Amino acid sequence: MTQTSSTAEPTLSHLDESGQVRMVDVSNKTSTMRCAIAQGVVRMSKQAYVLLSAHENGKGEVLNTARVAGILAAKRCAELIPLCHSLPLSFAGVEFSLDDANHTITIKATCRTDHKTGVEMEAMTACSVAALTIYDMCKAADKGIILEQIKLSFKSGGKSGEWHAN
Amino acid sequence: MTQTSSTAEPTLSHLDESGQVRMVDVSNKTSTMRCAIAQGVVRMSKQAYVLLSAHENGKGEVLNTARVAGILAAKRCAELIPLCHSLPLSFAGVEFSLDDANHTITIKATCRTDHKTGVEMEAMTACSVAALTIYDMCKAADKGIILEQIKLSFKSGGKSGEWHAN
Amino acid sequence: MTQTSSTAEPTLSHLDESGQVRMVDVSNKTSTMRCAIAQGVVRMSKQAYVLLSAHENGKGEVLNTARVAGILAAKRCAELIPLCHSLPLSFAGVEFSLDDANHTITIKATCRTDHKTGVEMEAMTACSVAALTIYDMCKAADKGIILEQIKLSFKSGGKSGEWHAN
Amino acid sequence: MTQTSSTAEPTLSHLDESGQVRMVDVSNKTSTMRCAIAQGVVRMSKQAYVLLSAHENGKGEVLNTARVAGILAAKRCAELIPLCHSLPLSFAGVEFSLDDANHTITIKATCRTDHKTGVEMEAMTACSVAALTIYDMCKAADKGIILEQIKLSFKSGGKSGEWHAN
Amino acid sequence: MTQTSSTAEPTLSHLDESGQVRMVDVSNKTSTMRCAIAQGVVRMSKQAYVLLSAHENGKGEVLNTARVAGILAAKRCAELIPLCHSLPLSFAGVEFSLDDANHTITIKATCRTDHKTGVEMEAMTACSVAALTIYDMCKAADKGIILEQIKLSFKSGGKSGEWHAN
Amino acid sequence: MTQTSSTAEPTLSHLDESGQVRMVDVSNKTSTMRCAIAQGVVRMSKQAYVLLSAHENGKGEVLNTARVAGILAAKRCAELIPLCHSLPLSFAGVEFSLDDANHTITIKATCRTDHKTGVEMEAMTACSVAALTIYDMCKAADKGIILEQIKLSFKSGGKSGEWHAN
Repeated sequence: MTQTSSTAEPTLSHLDESGQVRMVDVSNKTSTMRCAIAQGVVRMSKQAYVLLSAHENGKGEVLNTARVAGILAAKRCAELIPLCHSLPLSFAGVEFSLDDANHTITIKATCRTDHKTGVEMEAMTACSVAALTIYDMCKAADKGIILEQIKLSFKSGGKSGEWHAN
Repeated sequence: MTQTSSTAEPTLSHLDESGQVRMVDVSNKTSTMRCAIAQGVVRMSKQAYVLLSAHENGKGEVLNTARVAGILAAKRCAELIPLCHSLPLSFAGVEFSLDDANHTITIKATCRTDHKTGVEMEAMTACSVAALTIYDMCKAADKGIILEQIKLSFKSGGKSGEWHAN
Repeated sequence: MTQTSSTAEPTLSHLDESGQVRMVDVSNKTSTMRCAIAQGVVRMSKQAYVLLSAHENGKGEVLNTARVAGILAAKRCAELIPLCHSLPLSFAGVEFSLDDANHTITIKATCRTDHKTGVEMEAMTACSVAALTIYDMCKAADKGIILEQIKLSFKSGGKSGEWHAN
Repeated sequence: MTQTSSTAEPTLSHLDESGQVRMVDVSNKTSTMRCAIAQGVVRMSKQAYVLLSAHENGKGEVLNTARVAGILAAKRCAELIPLCHSLPLSFAGVEFSLDDANHTITIKATCRTDHKTGVEMEAMTACSVAALTIYDMCKAADKGIILEQIKLSFKSGGKSGEWHAN
Repeated sequence: MTQTSSTAEPTLSHLDESGQVRMVDVSNKTSTMRCAIAQGVVRMSKQAYVLLSAHENGKGEVLNTARVAGILAAKRCAELIPLCHSLPLSFAGVEFSLDDANHTITIKATCRTDHKTGVEMEAMTACSVAALTIYDMCKAADKGIILEQIKLSFKSGGKSGEWHAN
Repeated sequence: MTQTSSTAEPTLSHLDESGQVRMVDVSNKTSTMRCAIAQGVVRMSKQAYVLLSAHENGKGEVLNTARVAGILAAKRCAELIPLCHSLPLSFAGVEFSLDDANHTITIKATCRTDHKTGVEMEAMTACSVAALTIYDMCKAADKGIILEQIKLSFKSGGKSGEWHAN
């Protein structure tokens, strides 16, 4: 029931002394402004990509639907990830950039809060669910679409301060 | 409001004639036994991997937690993926295989139903949420963990029959 | 614990003999193809309407977001409406028509299932949540937006057959 | 990623510069005591109204069920309305007043929080879901029940201060 | 991935051969009419019981709220109990009987479905959440309220047929 | 709309002056560190208990699954218990102790927050859902498992201060 120790040696913070899972106790942490950005790539066949991006309406509808799904998932992250703290997000946004040459869509999800814990999981979840939604809406054209390299790219706030993926 | 056409040319099945999203109408489809398997890889630092896999209890607890999270997410897939049909799953399971040399965990999620639509999204969602849970539980040891190559590997049932990723 | 009687005299079907609420028992009903359509109107100031409809992107984004919210709500109807049966929808769709002269948006939500109960509540819920989402996205321009005349316009399937609002 | 501008000209606050949806960033807003009241009317046939209101138990059960459904929906508002912030409500209540002459039930939903954003959507959602629940429980007697004039009637707190519907 | 064996020796059906959790695969089971009844007792101080039962309105409101909470929980059982199958309930009801001498409320929750698995967990969950709701609404008068003896009392349907608690 | 009075005479705090349910208004309460501990007992046959506890893997998997289910339920308590406030938990944990002689498992659930209301319901809900999950996973060996004596054992924080079950 003690707080996460701040020793140099990393541990699996969700296991207590007897090796059993529990939420990390953040009762005594201070609320600070926190931000996290996650990124991921959706790779599809040329055929599916052309359908997605050529059709002006289609593209807007698919990407907007994925954006909405990602934002909604960020808000429900603590329902999905068992040991994640529920917290009120002050911002959630999902952006896409399309690469015509490689038939890929890069997703960037940003979350912010002014709370006692970070929002890495919220950003990672938003990114994953946006990617899954693109898969769902394009799978009729390509079942082999791949979600690639979903990862944290930035975090700030809290005791550990800023972190950038290298 | 018409069914998905079975023409050879693939389309984005969730867009109607005016390019707006809606669920695919499966009213007239037949219920058949359907299965889908999705796979993905979680890649982490040696340090995080050793913590995860060395500690006998730790490993069981982390992987069991991820398994439970994946199964629960499979059942709630239609709440997360906007145009996915809700349906009663007859099976959901999540398996892990660890690769000590590469510090990776491969996740395999299997879903089954006896219903009018496939369960690809349920399997993809189970795989993604299990991967996110592993990220969450190991991120204290490595924030740079990567979810790689989440994709469908198999599906059966329905009009299109069996499909294997190549 | 008896089934809904089929007497001519209407009753409040969710109350049992002692006047207490419970779900209607549909165990012995037959699954038939069922459809329900609900409609509603969102009335806003000219200023808000112009912002919504003039900006090409804006219009698409707002309406797509409302459409997605409505479809998702249809699938979660039984979580919101206490005595509503949960069932697998085979279709949910939300359409909008804009009236420039009156600054109104008419919403039409359609749901279908092949199950033991009707989908009136699913259609009514989809329509209401789509309307609420438009309110949310336009309230910065007009807090006085009104959701008007949300009602069932059509239903088919089941013992009572077709019904049209007059 | 900037805050909503406070220029006189209203905009659709959920669209960023490129016209894409995202939550409004409230990271830098101050928590203040906020209140919102929404109202709506349920209009039904005389026959349905008599059933609802004459039967003493029935009336209590139907209205209590609708009240509970409305309060629960207020707490889950951010799951339903895509760009709505999740926040801890400090109060949610739903009141009904019956008009025997017109066969209508007027619903008044009140929500409060001490947080960075307003609770208009929570009150509007509580009112709508309470109305939908009354529809559900009385539809066996009248499928043509209408949800009329759901709108915000009051809000206080935040930078824009008090607002009353005229 | 095999079905639950029907050998005489009982096993923990949610563990596979390697001792890991997964849903029981019911793909090949037949849909039959199934029913389950669970019961439980809420024991409170005389003071709390008098408040609950003396006030005519109060009693109705508290018990109706608990009933609604129980019914809603039955429908969401598969979200709460990790390895429980999601299925469409054809009936859920919750009844109370009050014992003035002992200051106890006995809860009886009944669920039915026409599906491939039993609804024991739905009935047990409805009973538990109804009991928790009574605790919540009476705890201002007695924090020491006890939920006692929540158990299955009856089940029918499926291969194992009828079962009665002794 | 007034706060709960602090008179000596206990009342049912969720009923307003007219005897109708509503959330307790905590707008003017102060955030303090709050903790609640709930306990419960799961009693099963010797046969089921031996299966649960003898099989080393099995025991870990069943109890971990129940622990995860309990923690997830604590976070979703306000969705299940109608008049419970939603709040961000700073800690949730579930512990088990096994009694070989009596074939019982004692569950202890602990919740903490730094907020305006107590977390008794979160702890009670976590304990109940953990118990239900054990029932679910062992019911193939014993349908007659009983959830016994679920009750609050400790609370601290808020105006009423510390409380211990006697």
